[in-house]
Amino acid sequence: MSAERDFVRAHRDLLHADLDAWLRIPSISADPARKADVRRSAEWLADAFRRDGFPTVEVWETPGALAVFAEWPAAEPDAPVALVYGHHDVQPVDPVELWESPPFEPTVRGEALFARGAADDKGQLLFHLLGLRAHLAATGRDTPAVTLRFLIEGEEESGSPHFAALLAERRERLAPDVVVVTDTGVFARDVPTTCIGMRGLVGCQIDFHGPEVDLHSGSFGGAVPNPLTALARLVGALHDAEGRVAIPGFYDTVRPVTDAERASYASLPFDEQSWLRETAKSRAATGEAGYTTLERIWARPTAEVNGLWGGYTGPGGKTIVPTEAHAKLSFRLVPDQTGAVLRQLVERFVAAHTPPGIIATLHFESDGVAPCHTPLDAPELSALVRAMERAFGTEIRYSKEGGSGPEADLAEVLGAPLVFLGVGLPDDRIHAPNERVVLPMLELGAEAAAYLWGELASLGSHRAAT
Amino acid sequence: MSAERDFVRAHRDLLHADLDAWLRIPSISADPARKADVRRSAEWLADAFRRDGFPTVEVWETPGALAVFAEWPAAEPDAPVALVYGHHDVQPVDPVELWESPPFEPTVRGEALFARGAADDKGQLLFHLLGLRAHLAATGRDTPAVTLRFLIEGEEESGSPHFAALLAERRERLAPDVVVVTDTGVFARDVPTTCIGMRGLVGCQIDFHGPEVDLHSGSFGGAVPNPLTALARLVGALHDAEGRVAIPGFYDTVRPVTDAERASYASLPFDEQSWLRETAKSRAATGEAGYTTLERIWARPTAEVNGLWGGYTGPGGKTIVPTEAHAKLSFRLVPDQTGAVLRQLVERFVAAHTPPGIIATLHFESDGVAPCHTPLDAPELSALVRAMERAFGTEIRYSKEGGSGPEADLAEVLGAPLVFLGVGLPDDRIHAPNERVVLPMLELGAEAAAYLWGELASLGSHRAAT
Repeated sequence: MSAERDFVRAHRDLLHADLDAWLRIPSISADPARKADVRRSAEWLADAFRRDGFPTVEVWETPGALAVFAEWPAAEPDAPVALVYGHHDVQPVDPVELWESPPFEPTVRGEALFARGAADDKGQLLFHLLGLRAHLAATGRDTPAVTLRFLIEGEEESGSPHFAALLAERRERLAPDVVVVTDTGVFARDVPTTCIGMRGLVGCQIDFHGPEVDLHSGSFGGAVPNPLTALARLVGALHDAEGRVAIPGFYDTVRPVTDAERASYASLPFDEQSWLRETAKSRAATGEAGYTTLERIWARPTAEVNGLWGGYTGPGGKTIVPTEAHAKLSFRLVPDQTGAVLRQLVERFVAAHTPPGIIATLHFESDGVAPCHTPLDAPELSALVRAMERAFGTEIRYSKEGGSGPEADLAEVLGAPLVFLGVGLPDDRIHAPNERVVLPMLELGAEAAAYLWGELASLGSHRAAT
Repeated sequence: MSAERDFVRAHRDLLHADLDAWLRIPSISADPARKADVRRSAEWLADAFRRDGFPTVEVWETPGALAVFAEWPAAEPDAPVALVYGHHDVQPVDPVELWESPPFEPTVRGEALFARGAADDKGQLLFHLLGLRAHLAATGRDTPAVTLRFLIEGEEESGSPHFAALLAERRERLAPDVVVVTDTGVFARDVPTTCIGMRGLVGCQIDFHGPEVDLHSGSFGGAVPNPLTALARLVGALHDAEGRVAIPGFYDTVRPVTDAERASYASLPFDEQSWLRETAKSRAATGEAGYTTLERIWARPTAEVNGLWGGYTGPGGKTIVPTEAHAKLSFRLVPDQTGAVLRQLVERFVAAHTPPGIIATLHFESDGVAPCHTPLDAPELSALVRAMERAFGTEIRYSKEGGSGPEADLAEVLGAPLVFLGVGLPDDRIHAPNERVVLPMLELGAEAAAYLWGELASLGSHRAAT
């Protein structure tokens, strides 16, 4: 046993009381009618930071929802700065009739607490508050061993539209040596992992313009270009027969998956058949030749068509050569791909696949989201793994997130390494009805957080040293 | 000058009076509210046949609209039987605000008469009535030189859904030696042509089923089959790089275009650039390598994607691997392709292009429409050409219709050769606002019809001889 663990177990009621209070606030950032609730959620969190002794607590306005900033400096002036990232907004609750208990009336059943936001992300932020109390109590300190900063945004479930700008604007206030992302989970309850990266994302729409109007396929078919045929050929050419992305240059800057990374993924008890049946609801695992399913999702870039449409789509038939065809594509990126280079490659690819008589327009949704990756030999990662191993009492392995998020902005704008301390479980049903969090997992998170600040303090401040 | 021509010119007022009366009846078969008008149109035509002396006139019920049958036997018992085909229903008139004069108030401007149905098809049927009077007057006969039968359906503009069944049911009453189709036009006013065939048509829908639900492209992308990608690859594989249809076996039964046919099409003053700009509204002429645009439209089979859809099609992006993808395909057939064989080839092609993890369903709209073709050495075609050349005073060349219609049923069910006597012009705006017919063209049609019965009579009855 440890003093931190004892403290967490002795004070779990504090965690439960916070959960019960905060989870009652329906902070749905996507719903304009909940704007006041999102604000109330930010204020609740700010009050909780103040209550727990943070000397600096600020609510930051953005063009969207409020973000909460809290700071508690270490007594040692050269202590490293750790920035915890999370979000206080939650997903919508539809279809609400599928909830077994109301989404904003936290309900304990067995060892789980059911409520919207329980795992994503309020429960995980609250384990930090309990963890910090445990850290202070167990070490007898008045201040954390690292200078602790929290930045908790309010628009993550709406795509974090103002987050990168906020980071850029507040760069000097945030200035971390390490970012601790607390918005993810572990591979399984008995297989704790830490995430070592996320894929980037670039999205675009291709419009192919053919004849000025829909043409009769009897009077014109076979003699004029059909934009749907042309676009289907382009989309069909995105991959080769081996499932590799066939856009010239696509892999040029891709950092190979290391043997150590592959070995770590291979050590996970991944049951592909069960994953296909229960999670992916798919009939086959397919993809880039030479890679496992986990590698394909976590560590390899993709080209995906998310939507494709044109011509007649109603009942029966309509014999036309359609005037237009449209496709929405998205690309998941891995280090060291960049959105800027990908954009050029896609532009060239579209030009090369636009046949005579077709006019192509290509529109990118935004600059995209960068990929991020924490090298296995990063000292901050080792510190996190040590903290988690003390809490979980077992080996911590590595996972990744195939998705993309504002975490990449943290790494890119703030120039600090990311580590991921999250204790969600794959079946917590985040974004779905009956979201829950497993309370013993939150206690493990609190305990790991309690150890983490000491582990990071022992690394010293890289920022101070340079 | 000829007696037939003199008669037509002297009695053009009869034609004009008939046009004015019949074109006032809005016989739109696609509009259920016009059901009584379609019936009134059939009755008007039946009365006109009786007025002109046809001894047998019947209105035939179908599960849809009424068809009109009229018969006037030749005095000679072994005279051949000619069956004239046309339709008394018309297209809808929307957008009605674009009409310069109301669509059902026939209005003469210059040498053209404007009204819905003026060219398609009432005006062309009425030239037959005047032509028959001229034939009888000029030859001094009491009966036509051939046994004349008319079958004028009332659902052509709605896809002739009950026509094949009607033909099969009334096969013995119709029993023609030759079918004269009067529902087409000429290449240009100064380039009279006769149609020698139409393409067939088969339509189908392919549905590709992938994951049971839309999946997050971050969490699953790159590791499960994307049905849109798979369907795009299938559609992209319909053609090779030379524009040939790449379905194995597709061309196996295609009768080559003869040199005589190609020479006839090549002799037409076809201005491809003007056709692209004014008619096809397209930026390029493309298609099967080795064939001209007219050959591609008239004489070569095609595979066309008429619609394709799946995934997210709204504003912005949505990063999903979609659950389903759908495509509507149609194929234009030429002799001797058949819908039954094509269906098997498509089934095999779809199966060969369905990757692991995708379930394909394939639905054919119907049995399709057969292609039809009149050989250049058919004596009935020569008789028609002679009749038209006497009327037009110039060489009659050959054209085809790229579209598909009930004409193929006539050839197939009745087992008689088809010839096409039509005097519509490419800019008559059939199916569009301000449809018109050029009155001097109708007089040329009447004169050609007046000659035709004698020309066909001189061939004798093939049916009687066998």
